[in-house]
Amino acid sequence: MKSTLTLIFCLFINLSIAQPNRLLVFQTDFGIKDGAVAAMKGVALGVDDDLRIFDLTHEIPPYNIWEAAYRLNQTASFWPARTVFVSVVDPGVGSARKSIVLLSKHGHLFVTPDNGTLTLIAETEGIQAVRLIDEKINRLPGSSASYTFHGRDVYAYTGARLAAGKIKFDDVGPLLEQPIVTLPYEKASVKGKEATGTIDVLDVQYGNVWTNISQALVNDLQINYGDLVRVRILKDNMVKFDNDIVFGRTFADVAEGKPITYLNSLLNFSIGINMGDFAKTESIGSGNMWKIIISKSAKKK
Amino acid sequence: MKSTLTLIFCLFINLSIAQPNRLLVFQTDFGIKDGAVAAMKGVALGVDDDLRIFDLTHEIPPYNIWEAAYRLNQTASFWPARTVFVSVVDPGVGSARKSIVLLSKHGHLFVTPDNGTLTLIAETEGIQAVRLIDEKINRLPGSSASYTFHGRDVYAYTGARLAAGKIKFDDVGPLLEQPIVTLPYEKASVKGKEATGTIDVLDVQYGNVWTNISQALVNDLQINYGDLVRVRILKDNMVKFDNDIVFGRTFADVAEGKPITYLNSLLNFSIGINMGDFAKTESIGSGNMWKIIISKSAKKK
Amino acid sequence: MKSTLTLIFCLFINLSIAQPNRLLVFQTDFGIKDGAVAAMKGVALGVDDDLRIFDLTHEIPPYNIWEAAYRLNQTASFWPARTVFVSVVDPGVGSARKSIVLLSKHGHLFVTPDNGTLTLIAETEGIQAVRLIDEKINRLPGSSASYTFHGRDVYAYTGARLAAGKIKFDDVGPLLEQPIVTLPYEKASVKGKEATGTIDVLDVQYGNVWTNISQALVNDLQINYGDLVRVRILKDNMVKFDNDIVFGRTFADVAEGKPITYLNSLLNFSIGINMGDFAKTESIGSGNMWKIIISKSAKKK
Repeated sequence: MKSTLTLIFCLFINLSIAQPNRLLVFQTDFGIKDGAVAAMKGVALGVDDDLRIFDLTHEIPPYNIWEAAYRLNQTASFWPARTVFVSVVDPGVGSARKSIVLLSKHGHLFVTPDNGTLTLIAETEGIQAVRLIDEKINRLPGSSASYTFHGRDVYAYTGARLAAGKIKFDDVGPLLEQPIVTLPYEKASVKGKEATGTIDVLDVQYGNVWTNISQALVNDLQINYGDLVRVRILKDNMVKFDNDIVFGRTFADVAEGKPITYLNSLLNFSIGINMGDFAKTESIGSGNMWKIIISKSAKKK
Repeated sequence: MKSTLTLIFCLFINLSIAQPNRLLVFQTDFGIKDGAVAAMKGVALGVDDDLRIFDLTHEIPPYNIWEAAYRLNQTASFWPARTVFVSVVDPGVGSARKSIVLLSKHGHLFVTPDNGTLTLIAETEGIQAVRLIDEKINRLPGSSASYTFHGRDVYAYTGARLAAGKIKFDDVGPLLEQPIVTLPYEKASVKGKEATGTIDVLDVQYGNVWTNISQALVNDLQINYGDLVRVRILKDNMVKFDNDIVFGRTFADVAEGKPITYLNSLLNFSIGINMGDFAKTESIGSGNMWKIIISKSAKKK
Repeated sequence: MKSTLTLIFCLFINLSIAQPNRLLVFQTDFGIKDGAVAAMKGVALGVDDDLRIFDLTHEIPPYNIWEAAYRLNQTASFWPARTVFVSVVDPGVGSARKSIVLLSKHGHLFVTPDNGTLTLIAETEGIQAVRLIDEKINRLPGSSASYTFHGRDVYAYTGARLAAGKIKFDDVGPLLEQPIVTLPYEKASVKGKEATGTIDVLDVQYGNVWTNISQALVNDLQINYGDLVRVRILKDNMVKFDNDIVFGRTFADVAEGKPITYLNSLLNFSIGINMGDFAKTESIGSGNMWKIIISKSAKKK
């Protein structure tokens, strides 16, 4: 009898383990000065008050879809499979732009307008399937008179229902028939003894410059720790910086105030100043118009 | 026997369901640069480490009770019944101002100084009852020498005890014998073919202007999507803006850089610029001295 | 039979109570504009998706170890025993600086680089033991090529494993054989009728000045509520402020715009202006070079 009961109890526990992991992560360009983020979280907890809700960031610069794409790509791989990400950088809210959920090959779910936000994740994690959100079913009841806050009425609500297991991925809506919208961007490449790439983003808090040149390309150039690297930075094809900088493991490899090139936390080629701000010091920005060319320097350290 | 046990187990589960929902939401003007918010959360988790704690915002401008009132009103209705809101914008901390808990007709609880913070919620959600916090019982043990941080010592502690079900609403203290303190504000109204209202707040992140003119009043003026609306904005009775703007569903209804009037996420009349910042462009602010008059324009689009 | 089963059930419950409290608190100087904090939280939830994760602050000024030490000390005592704090202000990341976990006499755990971050906590809470993190065991699997983000790869991972009970304190690594690194700082003291101390930090949101002169020292000077206090503030031994200010319980004890001295939420001597900003008005800063001398004034209020 005892064992029968234990079995019943364990079945109960196992069932609950078989549920989704209830992790829901929000990213927006709303800022945190008003009630918009809290309204989304309230809607999600109205779906299931046992969801575990987290913030990626709400400080994406307004309307900056590229940065939304970058921040998702920077973080999602560190989260457990089945985590649901809701990203709302949505300048086209209420227009004909589609609302989608992407299931990646890593098992993450991304709920977002189809406006390029998933450009990088689609490539890094791979796509299992993309579904169009059927707003007749997946929309906060009573919200149909509201046209400007799909983040709350559609995305938070749908994300919460997925994270809570109230709906399955198949219940989101029909499969998307065309490819997702992607932002144009150039991949880094090696030609001869040079690698050319883009400054994807600034590591804003510290003024480091993050490029899309991967560890593999750095290895192709046979750049080793301690070598000097010639770094040329161009904005709209005008040279903004041209100098040799040592390649190190970490900031502490150079004296305070000295520049260093290194592999950042995503293992991409980056430039900083130990205890300083390289981007500010050299007036460097980020985005498609900012190119970088690196090569092993002929000079010795 | 099995069914008896199942019954016991279900009773246990039901009991736990009968508990409060353990949702606790904080709003303050403390900012997030120091440890004040974390001290409040630590106190709350000391009451019950299974509370689910969320932030509405901590960026209410210092001492701005009106904005605290607005942000509560903007968000509370999206949260489940029994959620406990703790709002600490408290310029009169330690003075004779009272500390209260309001139970709304929607079943939300608001823990706050009685200084006007509940002006809008009282009207929108309605009041079931208001109780004075009896600080002899409902104050963090050992905190009596501290006179400047009731947010931590009284409000977080009391809110946590309510959210965790350690005390019931009746245990807060005696019923408040007088009405709660309210801030003066003017309601929007229609007279003839014009609606007059106030610019309650700016949608700060995007520079949109949010008024207190409701969808019902817009309907009274027979303004339909696609119509031109004459918008006059006055500061202290001086005209600051006077122009016709189209009324649309959402920003994408106009070209980038063009102004639009629309119903915001609270279904109030608002003004913005698609991908722009109307408040900054036109130097518009918010508050009691900022009035707005709208009417259906004689011109055609 | 019923009682046997109840017993089994209760044992199960008790076991889960015997687990760690699963509270994990993060403090960094990363800011909240990018994905660094979210990457750390994802790593932690990968260890155990049932952790309860909170933020102390992520707005420690970059590289400011003193302020990290202060904010930990300001808040930790309000958190339950067994809470795990992960603090990452780490200008020496990747250098020879050690990574440690301190178990305080209050039962809190602090995971951090050994760079002075625990200067104040060590004194206030007392040290039970300090262990060196053995990175061969306690490091995110697969992260060994990353040298610049120990916050994610070592501290978040180790803190999460401690908070989740996956490892015990003893499993962190060997006991630290030397004392922890501490920042130099001067304690407040009384000499004759004067107390001398340091302006440890500004209460940034409101412009209040917080010193390290404790309630006990104020009592030694026989300063009572309502007395005038002579306040001298010096920067690098140059007098920046010298005036009498009344000692009150709370801001509301003086008229709006008037200065007041009071005991802050940590019961230390502080200076503010009711509804104003003392630090800005008088151009006062904080840090080791900012000294304060107080005494009971000869004048009457």
